[in-house]
Amino acid sequence: MSALKIFAYAIREDEKPFVAQWQEDHPEIEVQFTDQLLNEDTAKLAQGADGVVVFQQLEYTQKTLKALADLGINKMSLRNVGVDNIDQAAAKKYNFQITNVPVYSPNAIAEHAAIQTANVLRQATVMEQKVQAGDLRWAPTIGREVRDQVVGVIGTGHIGQVFMKIMEGFGAKVIAYDLFRNPDLEAKGYYVDSLDDLYAQADVISLHVPDVPANVHMINDESIAKMKDDVVIVNVSRGPLVDTDAVIRGLDSGKVAGFVLDTYENEVGIFNNDWRKKEFPDARLADLIKRPNVALTPHTAFYTTHAVEQMVIQAFDNNLLMIEGKEAKTPVKF
Amino acid sequence: MSALKIFAYAIREDEKPFVAQWQEDHPEIEVQFTDQLLNEDTAKLAQGADGVVVFQQLEYTQKTLKALADLGINKMSLRNVGVDNIDQAAAKKYNFQITNVPVYSPNAIAEHAAIQTANVLRQATVMEQKVQAGDLRWAPTIGREVRDQVVGVIGTGHIGQVFMKIMEGFGAKVIAYDLFRNPDLEAKGYYVDSLDDLYAQADVISLHVPDVPANVHMINDESIAKMKDDVVIVNVSRGPLVDTDAVIRGLDSGKVAGFVLDTYENEVGIFNNDWRKKEFPDARLADLIKRPNVALTPHTAFYTTHAVEQMVIQAFDNNLLMIEGKEAKTPVKF
Ligand SMILES: NC(=O)c1ccc[n+]([C@@H]2O[C@H](COP(=O)([O-])OP(=O)(O)OC[C@H]3O[C@@H](n4cnc5c(N)ncnc54)[C@H](O)[C@@H]3O)[C@@H](O)[C@H]2O)c1
Ligand SMILES: NC(=O)c1ccc[n+]([C@@H]2O[C@H](COP(=O)([O-])OP(=O)(O)OC[C@H]3O[C@@H](n4cnc5c(N)ncnc54)[C@H](O)[C@@H]3O)[C@@H](O)[C@H]2O)c1
Repeated sequence: MSALKIFAYAIREDEKPFVAQWQEDHPEIEVQFTDQLLNEDTAKLAQGADGVVVFQQLEYTQKTLKALADLGINKMSLRNVGVDNIDQAAAKKYNFQITNVPVYSPNAIAEHAAIQTANVLRQATVMEQKVQAGDLRWAPTIGREVRDQVVGVIGTGHIGQVFMKIMEGFGAKVIAYDLFRNPDLEAKGYYVDSLDDLYAQADVISLHVPDVPANVHMINDESIAKMKDDVVIVNVSRGPLVDTDAVIRGLDSGKVAGFVLDTYENEVGIFNNDWRKKEFPDARLADLIKRPNVALTPHTAFYTTHAVEQMVIQAFDNNLLMIEGKEAKTPVKF
Repeated sequence: MSALKIFAYAIREDEKPFVAQWQEDHPEIEVQFTDQLLNEDTAKLAQGADGVVVFQQLEYTQKTLKALADLGINKMSLRNVGVDNIDQAAAKKYNFQITNVPVYSPNAIAEHAAIQTANVLRQATVMEQKVQAGDLRWAPTIGREVRDQVVGVIGTGHIGQVFMKIMEGFGAKVIAYDLFRNPDLEAKGYYVDSLDDLYAQADVISLHVPDVPANVHMINDESIAKMKDDVVIVNVSRGPLVDTDAVIRGLDSGKVAGFVLDTYENEVGIFNNDWRKKEFPDARLADLIKRPNVALTPHTAFYTTHAVEQMVIQAFDNNLLMIEGKEAKTPVKF
């Protein structure tokens, strides 16, 4: 019997050390990879493999899945969470077994939220612009210390909990709200009874909830009106949670002191693209980017060495389990 | 008997709310202030006052102190730490009682060090420059998570200890070195036996020691050679602690991944000035400012609302104690 073989698509430079590490830990498995995306043409690169490892925003179409199935391959491991771009009917038809990586590093996201919040409180961008221009005077660019803030966390799941720990390390007072309370956090007295309570008390409000219909635009004119003056709003979760226009009205009126965002309502097709030689597609986004009290990143919070290592290692681990006929750790069920 | 009166010099906009707060808490005391600095001419503004509250880089000269003494004023409370700019002989001659504010907010400095360290690990400046230019692609701007770092803290006094707590909140492993060990930290096992041990283990090295002769250029070519590759060096303490040229050699060779500095060997006369219409006075500093893996601020770490409040309140408190004939909390002894 020949060695089991895994073929990986779209391997980036920063992933290569972790692919090499996995190969070293599994010398009995044949590993090959390409930097190309998986489509109906490149499927043939996987010929002879028992499973594929993938990560792309491109669609996994019926034709692509058929091309793999024709090679006898129906075990596919995503290195990311999202499965929206998979043709589910085709996946069923060709009997695909699929895995993803639902949790790779809550800390990547939580740290990013904490750091950017602290930057906004410190007026870091204003100071940096002064320094770059040669103005080395400190006044009037005064900072607010994290420890003096009441930090309100909405959603105490994987990421929200890590964010709470970081903010407490700074010495901030942390309060939280969740539809389903975590018993440990409940025992420690973190929860307030309602979002209104949280809005009334918090100097920093950070969202760590999923983008389900009930949560769309949960931050809006009405909720902002309930918040304290000089509030800092943080959304590193999903763009639709926030009514961007409402936050901009808050920034313009001075009610909202700062806005941290790693996700944006209209980000699809805009983020992860290079607009330097094209017309920038979104005037509102361009305006946000220019504001010194807005800390905007294009959905990069997840992008750490720790996260990438987990995405690669877990995807290969899952794929190996499947091609050995065992149960994968995080199978995708449609 | 008329009310006791305190006159304050060089009150900035950001200090006014705290002066007003102190006045409100001490309605029996007459408080007056100016935005002007104290010198031999402006001394007369304090006429009738029992004590003065001051904060300036300008010298407190023999003539200035005499002008105050001639008005019967010899109780002076600094809103800052440093007393180098006081003519000591004159202060003694005119029988001055002087106070300063040695500790106003260790967190202001510690938070700044932590935030800037995290920014450098995240490549925040690189990403921000991309976003400002319209390049919204995340790769290859990958971050290192704080939790994955071994953080080496040199000096576990007021500021070092707060920095340790913040880094632990992120989940980092913290090790420390101090000439005089803190018993609590010792019991918890933080200390390594030597600086060499710390250099060998730490991914981030942060200085929180005083600028005494023995510590000048403690970070130099030799110590950097002992550090791990990709080390991040953090100096928010005092410029002379670091041989700047040695760090630049480390940055150029790639040995040093990042440099955080809020203090700089040659900062006197350069920081807290506006160079936008003058020739920038220091080519090495200009070079550091431009590097995306260097996070440079012009001695602004202390500048938070919390610190300013403490500086104002403690200075007025000290001054009141003195003019009431009581013992001040933090007298300066020459
Ligand atoms: N920026 C990024 O790169 C990035 C990466 C990964 C995840 N995320 C996002 O971060 C968010 C949190 O992820 P997670 O892994 O912590 O999720 P999780 O499922 O572990 O936790 C979510 C929590 O939100 C709570 N919740 C749901 N609706 C709520 C509501 N209306 N009010 C209060 N609580 C509510 C749930 O009970 C749960 O405890 C998600 O939106 C996710 O998509 C962003
Ligand atoms: N950037 C700013 O705005 C700012 C503001 C305030 C203070 N500072 C600076 O921060 C530094 C720390 O201040 P602090 O209030 O924490 O001081 P501190 O006196 O509380 O602590 C200093 C510690 O360093 C230790 N130490 C001295 N020399 C050492 C050496 N060679 N090796 C190891 N340990 C040594 C001492 O034993 C002490 O524990 C000082 O340099 C201070 O000037 C900077």
